[in-house]
Amino acid sequence: MNAAFERIDLPPEEIPPRWYNVLPDLPRLPDDMIDPQTEQPVTQEYLEQILPSALIAQDRSLERWIEIPPEVKAAYRLWRPTPVFRLNALEEYLGTPARIYAKYEGGSPSGSHKLNSALAQAYYAKRQGIRRLVTDTGAGQWGTALALAGALMGIEVQVFMVKASYQQKPYRRHLMETYGATVLPSPGPTTEFGRRILREEPNHPGSEATAVSEALEVVRADPDSKFSMGAFANHVLLHQTLIGLAARKQLALIGEEADYVVASVGCGSNMGGLALPFVHDKLSGSDVQLIAAEPSACATLTKGEYRYDYPDATGSGPLTRTMTLGHDFVPPPIHSGGLRYHGAAPLIGLLRNDGLLDARAYPQTEVFEAGALIARLTGMLPAPESAHAVRLVIDLARDCAAASKPATILFCWSGHGLLDLAAYGRYNAGDMRDVEDFEADELSRAGLAAMAAV
Amino acid sequence: MNAAFERIDLPPEEIPPRWYNVLPDLPRLPDDMIDPQTEQPVTQEYLEQILPSALIAQDRSLERWIEIPPEVKAAYRLWRPTPVFRLNALEEYLGTPARIYAKYEGGSPSGSHKLNSALAQAYYAKRQGIRRLVTDTGAGQWGTALALAGALMGIEVQVFMVKASYQQKPYRRHLMETYGATVLPSPGPTTEFGRRILREEPNHPGSEATAVSEALEVVRADPDSKFSMGAFANHVLLHQTLIGLAARKQLALIGEEADYVVASVGCGSNMGGLALPFVHDKLSGSDVQLIAAEPSACATLTKGEYRYDYPDATGSGPLTRTMTLGHDFVPPPIHSGGLRYHGAAPLIGLLRNDGLLDARAYPQTEVFEAGALIARLTGMLPAPESAHAVRLVIDLARDCAAASKPATILFCWSGHGLLDLAAYGRYNAGDMRDVEDFEADELSRAGLAAMAAV
Repeated sequence: MNAAFERIDLPPEEIPPRWYNVLPDLPRLPDDMIDPQTEQPVTQEYLEQILPSALIAQDRSLERWIEIPPEVKAAYRLWRPTPVFRLNALEEYLGTPARIYAKYEGGSPSGSHKLNSALAQAYYAKRQGIRRLVTDTGAGQWGTALALAGALMGIEVQVFMVKASYQQKPYRRHLMETYGATVLPSPGPTTEFGRRILREEPNHPGSEATAVSEALEVVRADPDSKFSMGAFANHVLLHQTLIGLAARKQLALIGEEADYVVASVGCGSNMGGLALPFVHDKLSGSDVQLIAAEPSACATLTKGEYRYDYPDATGSGPLTRTMTLGHDFVPPPIHSGGLRYHGAAPLIGLLRNDGLLDARAYPQTEVFEAGALIARLTGMLPAPESAHAVRLVIDLARDCAAASKPATILFCWSGHGLLDLAAYGRYNAGDMRDVEDFEADELSRAGLAAMAAV
Repeated sequence: MNAAFERIDLPPEEIPPRWYNVLPDLPRLPDDMIDPQTEQPVTQEYLEQILPSALIAQDRSLERWIEIPPEVKAAYRLWRPTPVFRLNALEEYLGTPARIYAKYEGGSPSGSHKLNSALAQAYYAKRQGIRRLVTDTGAGQWGTALALAGALMGIEVQVFMVKASYQQKPYRRHLMETYGATVLPSPGPTTEFGRRILREEPNHPGSEATAVSEALEVVRADPDSKFSMGAFANHVLLHQTLIGLAARKQLALIGEEADYVVASVGCGSNMGGLALPFVHDKLSGSDVQLIAAEPSACATLTKGEYRYDYPDATGSGPLTRTMTLGHDFVPPPIHSGGLRYHGAAPLIGLLRNDGLLDARAYPQTEVFEAGALIARLTGMLPAPESAHAVRLVIDLARDCAAASKPATILFCWSGHGLLDLAAYGRYNAGDMRDVEDFEADELSRAGLAAMAAV
């Protein structure tokens, strides 16, 4: 009965007081976003219609360090500092000389790292006197984080939730509503866009694309409302750098330095959060390797292209240069709703294109196998999204074993899987399929129907 | 935007190294348990057939302090030390001069305080060379904790789960199975008792009573298997004293002492865990008041009697003197499955009978109102069981406001409500009923059908 793990706590007074902005340290900046109407770089006016001013400034700031407002720091104390766990039982199971460390973000009351940015966004919006934040959500992770943040910061939250999830997976909706948010199924009758879709197809199941379009319509028509994003934008990744800054300190407390830095990627908010603070080290000559784990069903970083594309499926958002599978790509149904997005955050796309970030893709049965294994070895159930990172860590640790090479692996355990138990049940029963098993024609319709509904 | 809360952390090195055993400090001991066969006090032999030896010794120990084994202490680090939160936003909302502190146990990977005892029980069983622990579970909170503990300590776990829950609420079953436990619906065909019930009534939905009976049958037939309890026994409350010992230290860190100590009570494990360390203070002349919150649908402490009764509905277990509603009382369906038990733990019954513990009962609509309120004010969703304590705290704080009397209220936030979102959804939709609305004849059958299934 050796201890299954070892816990490395950060003293509360050591919580990073500032977010790290990678922009001034990069060899080159992400390319400008283009307004599809004017075909010119987006203007300040264009952005201010959509976003709180402080966030626009953060998106473009060239200051390396950005102070976390005291109100946001105070709110982070709800669950931070978050622990780093050394996973001795996993190392032993794999027979690896690698030392495996998990930065655990699943202890947040919304269940994932998403709350790090939600609290900041709600704070800045409230400070600007904005009445309401409007957002889109698929299965509900981001919507839940923003609803919670709205409740704590005292600002209204309206969430357009993919209709298939709204109807079939109501638990996160109940949670958002308990926090006081208004949750609307998308497409729905409250927007012109929603009404048009419903006229054409009354049973349209909705998608992230319809939800974003409805949210933007509301925001553009109401000067007191602004849009809120759970990933993609630079400011979201900035807020998440708390993860990597703290994890690096925690490793330093025990005299460790990471050789591998691993996270799952849908769009890139937890990858950015963990890895961006290490980009500086890497550019200063460190050998640290940054590696993303993604689903083979939506392999943006391993199969996508680096080019200008729309962030939304309807092509209404600003053209953005990043790694993309194409804005009309409809990811097939997998159980990691949080990773089903066609494009990477521009910063993640740039790092990938410029050779600073490696990536590997996995089918979901392998991911759930890793998730169930680590649950038994540690007692903590990972979200399927986070289990992608676990899957990759297992590969790395086995490589270390084969090469008899000790190495320090750090990964982001971004969320818990307590609202994904139906999927684990399916895996346990042997009923789970890899997307590779699906027929191509089954995908076209099922993919849309299941967007974020699985 | 004042901070909604203030967090008081216990430094990890201050985690209590010993459990507190209240027995030597009580004015009198609980009465002996009686073997219904012999009508004599239960023998060591009777107990050893059922329980690991170390736990039998703890049940009867008169040592005030019992050392926590290093292996158990190491496992507690998975989520301990747990925070105490001062709930400023709740105080402000209530306009009370009371200071309200929550000891938050919902951060455990099984979701509640139950893991404190599960890890200890799995450890002692493993050390004794026992191959397997067998237990009963209703909706699954206890079964989940024991399954997790079994995975970490390396001992098999078999769980008899009330059939209605097994079929209709499979999420915790999936979690137990992911941890590697064997979960069987009760009644089921693997035991003589189960087969007999199924012959009489093939669609019997099961109850805690059938699950306990099947578990005991397995244990009595297999010397390598022992029974494990999630509440009731003295040793379970002993393991939970970690909660109160730590909370008292945390209050002391900020110069506070509790005037009121509050917890929900089903059988009494989190109440005992929080309150027993304060019994010593109370008996030494402190004015601290201990108050239990229970459901009016199963009002053991406010409507029960202190007398000998069976702990199980079939009347096979040892006769035990405690507060009871009668072993044939079938609690009507409410959403707090963890509080639907006819009797209190003997220690809790004794405290109640002897005037050391006060109690109040609440209908579930009031409980969910309190739960939703505190979720909005703090960002954390309480389990319905824990929301009973919140409901009582609100009463106390309002009394303090009415009397302009400052007071320090400490309560146990025993678990999170993420697997109870269907019930919150029902509350949000206005579809929740108090048990008082049920017709008497609706209860007799529905009560059994829904035992622990709600």
